[in-house]
Amino acid sequence: MPKVYNSIIVPAPVDAVWSRIRDFHDFSWAPSLVTSCEKVGPGDGNTVGARRRLNGAFLDTLIAYSSIDRRMTYSMDDGPSPVSSSEIHDYVGDLHLLPVTADNTTFVEWSAAWESNNTDAVGYMNEAYQSLLADLSAGFGAGRPDQPAKHGKIPG
Amino acid sequence: MPKVYNSIIVPAPVDAVWSRIRDFHDFSWAPSLVTSCEKVGPGDGNTVGARRRLNGAFLDTLIAYSSIDRRMTYSMDDGPSPVSSSEIHDYVGDLHLLPVTADNTTFVEWSAAWESNNTDAVGYMNEAYQSLLADLSAGFGAGRPDQPAKHGKIPG
Amino acid sequence: MPKVYNSIIVPAPVDAVWSRIRDFHDFSWAPSLVTSCEKVGPGDGNTVGARRRLNGAFLDTLIAYSSIDRRMTYSMDDGPSPVSSSEIHDYVGDLHLLPVTADNTTFVEWSAAWESNNTDAVGYMNEAYQSLLADLSAGFGAGRPDQPAKHGKIPG
Amino acid sequence: MPKVYNSIIVPAPVDAVWSRIRDFHDFSWAPSLVTSCEKVGPGDGNTVGARRRLNGAFLDTLIAYSSIDRRMTYSMDDGPSPVSSSEIHDYVGDLHLLPVTADNTTFVEWSAAWESNNTDAVGYMNEAYQSLLADLSAGFGAGRPDQPAKHGKIPG
Repeated sequence: MPKVYNSIIVPAPVDAVWSRIRDFHDFSWAPSLVTSCEKVGPGDGNTVGARRRLNGAFLDTLIAYSSIDRRMTYSMDDGPSPVSSSEIHDYVGDLHLLPVTADNTTFVEWSAAWESNNTDAVGYMNEAYQSLLADLSAGFGAGRPDQPAKHGKIPG
Repeated sequence: MPKVYNSIIVPAPVDAVWSRIRDFHDFSWAPSLVTSCEKVGPGDGNTVGARRRLNGAFLDTLIAYSSIDRRMTYSMDDGPSPVSSSEIHDYVGDLHLLPVTADNTTFVEWSAAWESNNTDAVGYMNEAYQSLLADLSAGFGAGRPDQPAKHGKIPG
Repeated sequence: MPKVYNSIIVPAPVDAVWSRIRDFHDFSWAPSLVTSCEKVGPGDGNTVGARRRLNGAFLDTLIAYSSIDRRMTYSMDDGPSPVSSSEIHDYVGDLHLLPVTADNTTFVEWSAAWESNNTDAVGYMNEAYQSLLADLSAGFGAGRPDQPAKHGKIPG
Repeated sequence: MPKVYNSIIVPAPVDAVWSRIRDFHDFSWAPSLVTSCEKVGPGDGNTVGARRRLNGAFLDTLIAYSSIDRRMTYSMDDGPSPVSSSEIHDYVGDLHLLPVTADNTTFVEWSAAWESNNTDAVGYMNEAYQSLLADLSAGFGAGRPDQPAKHGKIPG
């Protein structure tokens, strides 16, 4: 089971970070990677079962949501290669915030796991999540990492 | 922090039990205790933030929902004595299903915890949850427990 | 990532069941399958890092242990085919008890997951866990399941 | 139920931080607060049931331990006022590490909860955990926080 785990510190209080990301249908905080986020079907962005299409290519469904734990879990039902539904299946992603009380910032962890006969998608998804996390942190004033991820391969 | 934990085996597959309880606004499976379940405000029964009023007296808000774990978590924001908002606060309840693979039945656990200066509500809430669980199990054909809970004190 | 999940109800209180299984080095409660359980290296049966050899063939290491949650987690570092270290890796098993308060019995869940290029070990391990759980339950007086698992393929 | 939650970023990889704290009987990494850490009874520092006495006054028992999750959970069975066994009970503390992959540092969270008729111990324990976390981080080269905690009230 290929899996990825990425995490970052965002220089803002946990409630501020949660406010920015809590709507499953709003990805405006990740402009480097996400050029469009379209609501698909019924259900608001805090409704389990809500769907979104990212960059016209990735189709996600919200499968668990906790405002008390500041956590959302979703399946990725389709995407471009190497994460198309013919290459991988049972993709589950999980985005979770925890407060760093020592300096009132936020620990953000983003993990995913899926089934596949190969690990071709691991590097691709690591790059995607690193870009998303860097954007989230930069949106609160953090510098970009020294070695910026190259996003050329992510559709957009 | 007063807390309660109750659990039961329901003689049906876990998907069948989840189908019956998964709508936060539908409590028709618990007729012994719940005489009315009214949707309050926007949001369907799988939407975090959805609200319900039970028996005209209890006000609940859905705060976490996972269809993959078959779990829902809610706050009880008000209720009759001894669980009124002047007597207790920070009430969180959690309903969770797990499959019993040996005989294709379902383990149902229902826990709750709250803050209070006293433990007056413990017996009251244990009685409520035992009644709800007994109804759920009876709805799938289980016999009622030998010592039926007395529900006289629960509004309805 | 192949995985298995098996669960059963044991007709005894959760503390009694935990007392029987809590020693990682004692598998006397599973006579159908486990003919020998040998302590390997230092560390008692509640010590993370403790090791055991089952039936002279399976080598397990305790990696997490919680008496408060009545849960133990272990890696299986080697075994006979199809779970030998050349066929699978990163095998983690998890044994967990929860009380069934309605009738003072115990829900036992036993899951495992591992990495492999194939799913050959799934049926084998399901059979093993079903036998172990049936023995645990039978040790407290439960009848054996109608369709007894066949254990012929498990070394012993 | 009074509870405390403190967290910090430690400027070192998660495996290095875990190596430093993983022995329940070794508190040499927290010199500001812990002047002595004495092993009590049998069981090494990764054994559930292991006990320690800190500063001759606090008595802790390890109740859960996971090397895979880098987490340890313990009860505090006695201590000086305001955490003596006559003032509080059912004290459970939990220390947990997560990797910050963006810069190869470590998120450390330390929580505790207990039962009491008052919240007198909250400030006292917050101060203790903040000091412990600051020491852990300083041991890996981090600067002390601008507003150093005052430790005068912690026995030592």
